[in-house]
Amino acid sequence: MAYDRDVVREALGKARAEGRDSLTAPEGRLICEAYGIPVPGEGLATTADDAVRLADDLGGPVAMKIVSRDILHKTEAGGVKIGVEGADAVKAAFDEIIANAKAYDADADIDGVQVQQMLSGGHEVIIGATTDPTFGKVVVFGLGGVLVEVTKDVTFRLAPMDLDTARSMLDSIAAAEVLKGARGAELADAGALADVIVRVSDLVSDFPEIREIDLNPVFARPDGASAADVRILLETEETVAPVQHSPEEILAVMNRLMHPRAVAVIGASNETGKIGNSVMRNLVDGGYAGEIYPINPKADEVLGRKAYAKIGDVPGDVDVAVFAVPAKFVVGAVREVGAKGVPVAVLIPSGFAETGNVELQEELVTAARESGVRLLGPNIYGYYSTHDNLCATFCTPFDVKGGVALTSQSGGIGMAILGFARSTNTGVSAIVGLGNKSDIDEDDLLTFFATDDNTTCVAMHLEDLKDGRAFVAAAQRTTKEKPVVVLKAGRTASGARAASSHTGALAGDDKVYDDILRQAGVVRAYGLNDMLEYARGLPVLPTPKGENVVIITGAGGSGVLLSDACEANGLQLMTIPQDLDEAFRAFIPPFGAAGNPVDITGGEPPSTYEATIRLGLQDPRIHALILGYWHTIVTPPMVFAELVAKVAAEARAAGIDKPIVASLAGDTEVEQASQYLYEHGVVAYPYTTEKPVAVLGAKYRWARAAGLI
Amino acid sequence: MAYDRDVVREALGKARAEGRDSLTAPEGRLICEAYGIPVPGEGLATTADDAVRLADDLGGPVAMKIVSRDILHKTEAGGVKIGVEGADAVKAAFDEIIANAKAYDADADIDGVQVQQMLSGGHEVIIGATTDPTFGKVVVFGLGGVLVEVTKDVTFRLAPMDLDTARSMLDSIAAAEVLKGARGAELADAGALADVIVRVSDLVSDFPEIREIDLNPVFARPDGASAADVRILLETEETVAPVQHSPEEILAVMNRLMHPRAVAVIGASNETGKIGNSVMRNLVDGGYAGEIYPINPKADEVLGRKAYAKIGDVPGDVDVAVFAVPAKFVVGAVREVGAKGVPVAVLIPSGFAETGNVELQEELVTAARESGVRLLGPNIYGYYSTHDNLCATFCTPFDVKGGVALTSQSGGIGMAILGFARSTNTGVSAIVGLGNKSDIDEDDLLTFFATDDNTTCVAMHLEDLKDGRAFVAAAQRTTKEKPVVVLKAGRTASGARAASSHTGALAGDDKVYDDILRQAGVVRAYGLNDMLEYARGLPVLPTPKGENVVIITGAGGSGVLLSDACEANGLQLMTIPQDLDEAFRAFIPPFGAAGNPVDITGGEPPSTYEATIRLGLQDPRIHALILGYWHTIVTPPMVFAELVAKVAAEARAAGIDKPIVASLAGDTEVEQASQYLYEHGVVAYPYTTEKPVAVLGAKYRWARAAGLI
Repeated sequence: MAYDRDVVREALGKARAEGRDSLTAPEGRLICEAYGIPVPGEGLATTADDAVRLADDLGGPVAMKIVSRDILHKTEAGGVKIGVEGADAVKAAFDEIIANAKAYDADADIDGVQVQQMLSGGHEVIIGATTDPTFGKVVVFGLGGVLVEVTKDVTFRLAPMDLDTARSMLDSIAAAEVLKGARGAELADAGALADVIVRVSDLVSDFPEIREIDLNPVFARPDGASAADVRILLETEETVAPVQHSPEEILAVMNRLMHPRAVAVIGASNETGKIGNSVMRNLVDGGYAGEIYPINPKADEVLGRKAYAKIGDVPGDVDVAVFAVPAKFVVGAVREVGAKGVPVAVLIPSGFAETGNVELQEELVTAARESGVRLLGPNIYGYYSTHDNLCATFCTPFDVKGGVALTSQSGGIGMAILGFARSTNTGVSAIVGLGNKSDIDEDDLLTFFATDDNTTCVAMHLEDLKDGRAFVAAAQRTTKEKPVVVLKAGRTASGARAASSHTGALAGDDKVYDDILRQAGVVRAYGLNDMLEYARGLPVLPTPKGENVVIITGAGGSGVLLSDACEANGLQLMTIPQDLDEAFRAFIPPFGAAGNPVDITGGEPPSTYEATIRLGLQDPRIHALILGYWHTIVTPPMVFAELVAKVAAEARAAGIDKPIVASLAGDTEVEQASQYLYEHGVVAYPYTTEKPVAVLGAKYRWARAAGLI
Repeated sequence: MAYDRDVVREALGKARAEGRDSLTAPEGRLICEAYGIPVPGEGLATTADDAVRLADDLGGPVAMKIVSRDILHKTEAGGVKIGVEGADAVKAAFDEIIANAKAYDADADIDGVQVQQMLSGGHEVIIGATTDPTFGKVVVFGLGGVLVEVTKDVTFRLAPMDLDTARSMLDSIAAAEVLKGARGAELADAGALADVIVRVSDLVSDFPEIREIDLNPVFARPDGASAADVRILLETEETVAPVQHSPEEILAVMNRLMHPRAVAVIGASNETGKIGNSVMRNLVDGGYAGEIYPINPKADEVLGRKAYAKIGDVPGDVDVAVFAVPAKFVVGAVREVGAKGVPVAVLIPSGFAETGNVELQEELVTAARESGVRLLGPNIYGYYSTHDNLCATFCTPFDVKGGVALTSQSGGIGMAILGFARSTNTGVSAIVGLGNKSDIDEDDLLTFFATDDNTTCVAMHLEDLKDGRAFVAAAQRTTKEKPVVVLKAGRTASGARAASSHTGALAGDDKVYDDILRQAGVVRAYGLNDMLEYARGLPVLPTPKGENVVIITGAGGSGVLLSDACEANGLQLMTIPQDLDEAFRAFIPPFGAAGNPVDITGGEPPSTYEATIRLGLQDPRIHALILGYWHTIVTPPMVFAELVAKVAAEARAAGIDKPIVASLAGDTEVEQASQYLYEHGVVAYPYTTEKPVAVLGAKYRWARAAGLI
């Protein structure tokens, strides 16, 4: 689009030169016009006759407002008249406004009266942009008016954006149907609204010094949209751009971190109970095949490995230095590590920013940057790279190799990840602690995991993002190939910066995170167990090829609850075509219900489960199966589990791989049966109708965002 | 309130006599006036001069509408003018409306033109009532307009209701703040709105033949409310009142069912694999101390107990007859059971309505009614009354006695209840299958459980209610004393009856269930596992005495997630007073965070957990504790569990009993520690921050509804 950037530059420059942090209404209008954002016709009248002429040109009723830099509260000053129509009325209004203004402030410097076309009809919407501390420029869209301010029915996207993304905003509010003319409402011109959204997103991207912009209201008619009022606030603080690394630089370091050929342990120890001993033991016991160099000035060897007094003494190259020394020794050791050419330091020690010692952490970061060392941590449990048998932590080894990479900002959550993974036998490619995130953060890890063949799913616990844009960029690259699950903690925290516009006020931290993580294709988990279960289940399930979900159940009661769960998780129960319905009916008792759920009824033998599940897998119109099992003497839990595993394996051998999840209702044997099913590629749980469907729903959310459905 | 019921009776009688199923606008207005519902001023004009006079009397702009029973679509006929003001305009409008009407239908019988005061300003709301198939007369309230129809922001209550309940409706919509004048909106007269709600609820209660009533819109101003339009639809079908039993009658039967002194098994068998054998074995093996009478015409004894050919041969009184014979023998046997004076039959057999054999079930119900026998089932697994060691099912015995009574409509869900309870060692008072609910249903069971000293919590899975009002009455009696958890399946089912009013269309089944279950004080679970966890946890937790919840955590990361969960579950994190904050700080490292969560930091010894938790229990301003544990070498899981159990026991011994829940993050030992804590009165889970807070939230929801906080 052709924008007149010079006009904007000049207006912003003028305001800055005058030390203002906001623009006047006429300046805002000028900027809108420069960016092709439709605004109502208007003009400045300096005499009553001027006003009459202007009103006549504009046609219809007009709004009239005093223009004076000395009068900020126009309404209070009696300086606003709306709905003025007809020459006499316009003339009288002009005189009254001027008289009121003079009475309000005899010394006011009055430019005249703004005469503005009154917009009406259509829907009032708000379009704006604000500067989010995490994500930078974000655009907001919502219906206007009091009701929406109360219910906060708005949606956010990163600026800039294309027209498709802008259109997606219109569909992302709860009241979306209103703009589509639902229930006799007037249709809004979606194209015109999307166009305004794109222009606003371009404006704030081109001019980052615009801190906030509100177009409120924008009148959306069937044949266009115009911004009736505009408010622009300017940035007053200098912003510091985050440190950037290119993907190539990141990958070079991350590959050495995750697949090291040699690891040094700074502070390796023979003394049981010391962290430097636990780390050494875990490296050795975990079966890591690379070189392990203990660094300890007082020992000749540690756990049978030759020790070195300092890292500089190590003969060969070192890829990773794991730190297990007190905080006060870390900065010095990082410089030594850098001098040795070690690209990355894993900093287990605590005692930095998390204990209030911000200065020491800053010193650390400076030392690392000067020494060319990248930092993981400090204040972490370490990290696991399971396919390399690498357990560089003070926790216990973990050796179930698999597809999910997990990261956590908090050590406690890291311990929960480890316990859960061990308890459920979850296949893991990596577990990484991020702690204080003094340097390496989620987007570095994502950049690596995106390229890592061992990793088929990434799950991250985080409390904040140092650089939201870098994360979104890394996530967008990753989510095209593999699911990224994010547990963003701190959903209730409100923005630190007091808001001075509607858009700012609407941008509660979590809603911004929610919308923008979705824009990045991320599957969000809203609690710890959700994240863990998604992480466990998503790599197990193949990607669905379409939206048709079918429930096959032996328990009618489970069928109803599983249907409820489908609705709650945005899954579409397939409308079963007649021929398929008849095919199902051929296998089930006459009083069983085909349709969807397919209710095979409770007393059926294994062969009924088998025949119906096989049909569900073989028919190409069905894309995913949800199974409801009811424990009976006729079909005991393990018999069910084995038959499902067998039918699924047959189908896979024939090239059919559909996601299957199962809810098992029964006595305690269903626990073993669920575990067996999970190990055979079926995401199965006992005593819950919610969880299997939630995991399938998460897989679908990812597949849709990745454009695979 | 003084209502003119005669006016209503006459209007309804007239409409019925004319075979109409709806009232005209003037009739609707008449009824509103009879019930003191404010309506705008209006009158019927038969001449243009009439119209001018009327408009003048009403003042301000008027709406004018053709009145003719032959013209249904007034707007289409050009028969509506709004915003007419001034004598000339009113006269012109009258003439035009009449002319249009005649042009539209030359034969139309025209009564004249209705001239109505035009209401404006204030908020448009909808107040209505409909006849719900489950709950009968229910009242709806919501904001009016298109936006609300799309977002369905409405709330329901049973009619009739008192003024407090009516006022609670105003607070129960998402947009509630709008009516309170939020963000510069006009204040609505809450008293006037509540008054209209009560009047509508009285009207439909007094006249059940009113099927639906819509007051839409009602204009809510700061100083009153008036219904601008009213639509009344009449009942056309005869409704059958459900069979009613008095609480005394119900209790007499239920006490014999749940605490029987003698049980007969119809179809008792020595043959392994037969249901009649399983039931006998479970009764005997379960340790039931009462008389057991096997009924079997072909055996002398069953499992060592003397058998009888028919129930009539049994020498003593029998309290319960458990049926384990094929469906076709059930009706006859029920009559024999009735002749013997057995008050209740437990019908395990299937083959009735659930297999399409509705006729046989009707025959069964008739036989039972004629024989004075009440029926549990058919098509159930049986029932457990654990404190009587009674296991009258074909499943396996269950012997963990405790406070929760569980019921399920579906057999599959019943099996999940059994497996879950066994796996988690949940203390149970009863498990009851309801199956086809041909007779005994949830309100019978609730009536019993309310009075049962062994039961401290009731959890029910249901797909429908036969008599919603009886259930609400029983629930309201019960929930004052003990929590009732309901898993209502089929949330997505839509009403069977096509709706012909706004109110009807807004009354999607689940929203009605949701609001009215809440009105009854029920804690709703939205999935199977939620129900099971609430059932397990609620009896363990003492009732909180206030809203002040405090999180004490060793893992800052868990603290944030637990705070998120509090927000999601409607729990209030206490604002810690300064003296208490200082008291906490005395125990934790200087870089730990007091405030709430109290973050004791990760490396702390057991004594820090102990001191802070003890303080949390002892300070009377704190009402509930949420603990976050982080597995470390310094404080291993079982050490944490034992210290928490000890501190809690000390407090209980000192008369302090507050709910405590815990989230344990760590390696697999946290599973054992969680189980230990649960057994010592602390609701604890590994690997989840969601569940412990959800259970505490459920306890709070109940306590608030019961008026205990």
